[in-house]
Amino acid sequence: MDSDGMATRGVNYSRVFSQAIDRLHAEGRYRVFIDILRNKGAFPNARCFAGHNGPKPITVWCSNDYLAMGQHPDVIAAMEEALHDVGAGSGGTRNIGGNTHYHIDLEGELADLHGKEAALLFTSGYVSNEATLSTLAKLFPGMVVFSDEMNHASMIAGIRHAGCEKRIFRHNDLAHLEELLAAEDADAPKLIAFESVYSMDGDIAPIADICDLADRYNALTYLDEVHAVGMYGAHGGGISERDEVAHRLTVIEGTLGKAFGVMGGYIAADRTVIDVIRSYAPGFIFTTSLSPVLVAGALASVRHLKASSVERDGQQQAAETLKRMMREAGLPVMDSTTHIVPLMVGDPVKAKKISDILLAEYGVYVQPINYPTVPRGTERLRFTPGPAHDETMMRELCQALVEIWDRLELRAAA
Amino acid sequence: MDSDGMATRGVNYSRVFSQAIDRLHAEGRYRVFIDILRNKGAFPNARCFAGHNGPKPITVWCSNDYLAMGQHPDVIAAMEEALHDVGAGSGGTRNIGGNTHYHIDLEGELADLHGKEAALLFTSGYVSNEATLSTLAKLFPGMVVFSDEMNHASMIAGIRHAGCEKRIFRHNDLAHLEELLAAEDADAPKLIAFESVYSMDGDIAPIADICDLADRYNALTYLDEVHAVGMYGAHGGGISERDEVAHRLTVIEGTLGKAFGVMGGYIAADRTVIDVIRSYAPGFIFTTSLSPVLVAGALASVRHLKASSVERDGQQQAAETLKRMMREAGLPVMDSTTHIVPLMVGDPVKAKKISDILLAEYGVYVQPINYPTVPRGTERLRFTPGPAHDETMMRELCQALVEIWDRLELRAAA
Repeated sequence: MDSDGMATRGVNYSRVFSQAIDRLHAEGRYRVFIDILRNKGAFPNARCFAGHNGPKPITVWCSNDYLAMGQHPDVIAAMEEALHDVGAGSGGTRNIGGNTHYHIDLEGELADLHGKEAALLFTSGYVSNEATLSTLAKLFPGMVVFSDEMNHASMIAGIRHAGCEKRIFRHNDLAHLEELLAAEDADAPKLIAFESVYSMDGDIAPIADICDLADRYNALTYLDEVHAVGMYGAHGGGISERDEVAHRLTVIEGTLGKAFGVMGGYIAADRTVIDVIRSYAPGFIFTTSLSPVLVAGALASVRHLKASSVERDGQQQAAETLKRMMREAGLPVMDSTTHIVPLMVGDPVKAKKISDILLAEYGVYVQPINYPTVPRGTERLRFTPGPAHDETMMRELCQALVEIWDRLELRAAA
Repeated sequence: MDSDGMATRGVNYSRVFSQAIDRLHAEGRYRVFIDILRNKGAFPNARCFAGHNGPKPITVWCSNDYLAMGQHPDVIAAMEEALHDVGAGSGGTRNIGGNTHYHIDLEGELADLHGKEAALLFTSGYVSNEATLSTLAKLFPGMVVFSDEMNHASMIAGIRHAGCEKRIFRHNDLAHLEELLAAEDADAPKLIAFESVYSMDGDIAPIADICDLADRYNALTYLDEVHAVGMYGAHGGGISERDEVAHRLTVIEGTLGKAFGVMGGYIAADRTVIDVIRSYAPGFIFTTSLSPVLVAGALASVRHLKASSVERDGQQQAAETLKRMMREAGLPVMDSTTHIVPLMVGDPVKAKKISDILLAEYGVYVQPINYPTVPRGTERLRFTPGPAHDETMMRELCQALVEIWDRLELRAAA
């Protein structure tokens, strides 16, 4: 195929590509990247380049750098030291030239954080879920995976790529999960895959109860804690630390790219399980390892949040305050029990319009969340207040939202 | 399942995990991470922590930081600036809070490097292949993908995850590829997926001839250039630049983690193709974007290698010299036409033994390459000399190899 001859014969490739884009525009969910640069040391302040009118100052309300650890002096200093000590990239896979002492230290620190024997780093949380779930399930012929209906796309990808049987249980519904478990052969290998904090609704799974079911039906358990590590538990070990159930889980998965403020993913588990994933998962074996600069930064961040609860407490307080202010202002804040503050809109075009007005007129950056990230009809704005968002910022935000809600006549819909 | 109750009923999970590890030991291909730290500014020198006797000085001979750009002052300076300007991580996906001006600049630079309208960054080359191929193929009902038998694991994963029809053609075999193309319905959508430089043998694909076949049979083309970008072509645009065929390819895929010395992957293509992948690929949408620190470093590296051929020329010369010295020493160097210098061993246990002796007795670090990275029976050592490996190092290396070859009585096998 040459560049301007896509339609010479048979299938018209150009038309299929264009139609795929047209469908997104028609549904109002074509996405535009917002062009920003954060100001280090002044988070949540940033500069916006959108529409080439920038740089213009804005306040970021939708970062997953939940505790602003990406700006923490210890993290920056550790990354700078690694940069000067060993250089930019690792130069290879973990097996071929790309292992460093930093990787080994961080894996030890993460194993300790979750009370497990070992841990394994991946280039992202997405890859850690995809690679681990697909490899685990493939190892057991006849494996049946029980998956919460709200599980993240990366977990769904891993389960699908395993090619195994899959049963979807209703979100956090223990009775439904048990019904599905009981329906399978008692001798079939089983794995229950779920999250602790669900990122778009901000609710929490009943981990202990799910472990009880796993015991009763002899199932392995896989818990995604990406929206909880660093933020819950006395040392930032997540909801499984807070609920004192970490030892009951087969695999705990986490990220270095949200509360820890850097980039990368990991799993923690028994030594043998880690050894199996390390040895068999293509998504681990055949990829350049995390840059030692990132690993050094994550190591500093994990260590800091193990010892300090100031950031966690500040975040919880900020989230409580914002939820209260939104409720008092009559805004349709959703019923979240965590640090995540979702505001229901229920329409992709309106969600984008509110976001556009906030950015253009109020200097507030919050992204509209549309399908496929959330189900159609539940489009929303998702706020992630952190320890650095103060009450003045929150008052200004609520006032802006009320004005926009009135202007767009959204009160009835809310 | 509780931590010590894996065997209470039905399936014995612990036993299956242990057996999986035992199989690797039995085949002699259980892998151990070598624990090293490179010395920035002194590459290929490094420190080794292996066996806890370390730090001990070693010479690295198997890095994919082919041109030592991971140590280049421009790259280090750019990363340091970004670290202090915006912080450690991006804090979100490209769509939700994790886009930065650096990402947009680098995508522009990469599009220009390959003479394409647009480019798209991924967290790794593995993810760029998996996400793009699976998404491309899914978009066309009835798609048939024609895949070179030596394609990388990440391409195979992408094609498999698309769930489409797949035809494997013999490595670089145009007649076989044409035979397979001709056997399909002329109206079926088709995609030919291949690499430019094959990383374990070091040979090169006939890109122009494959594009001719793509034209004749109206197929899209997908070229993986991860072992060529930065190293071939007047500006580092890869073999497709050197052969003046970049404009004929639908998608060119590359990495920021090898010759560019940092981390991450990308594709370059027409604007509409990029827009489709950006909008539909789960592996792009649902993951935290590359750290702006990495993006800034990669931007400096790409710009430097666009303007400078010193590193490329030095690498080619080093590879030629090492291949000549090995041939003169009677060592079984494979027939590579590129910068990659593979030495055939043909047995996983012996390959590991040679590597162990080199590290322990000669301070030489080169990893044994075993199945599944190469087919069983073709286990090898893979050397990647770069501009910083001088002739003295090469003489010492060849002398060490000859001594080991004699000690292990490998002459007959070679």
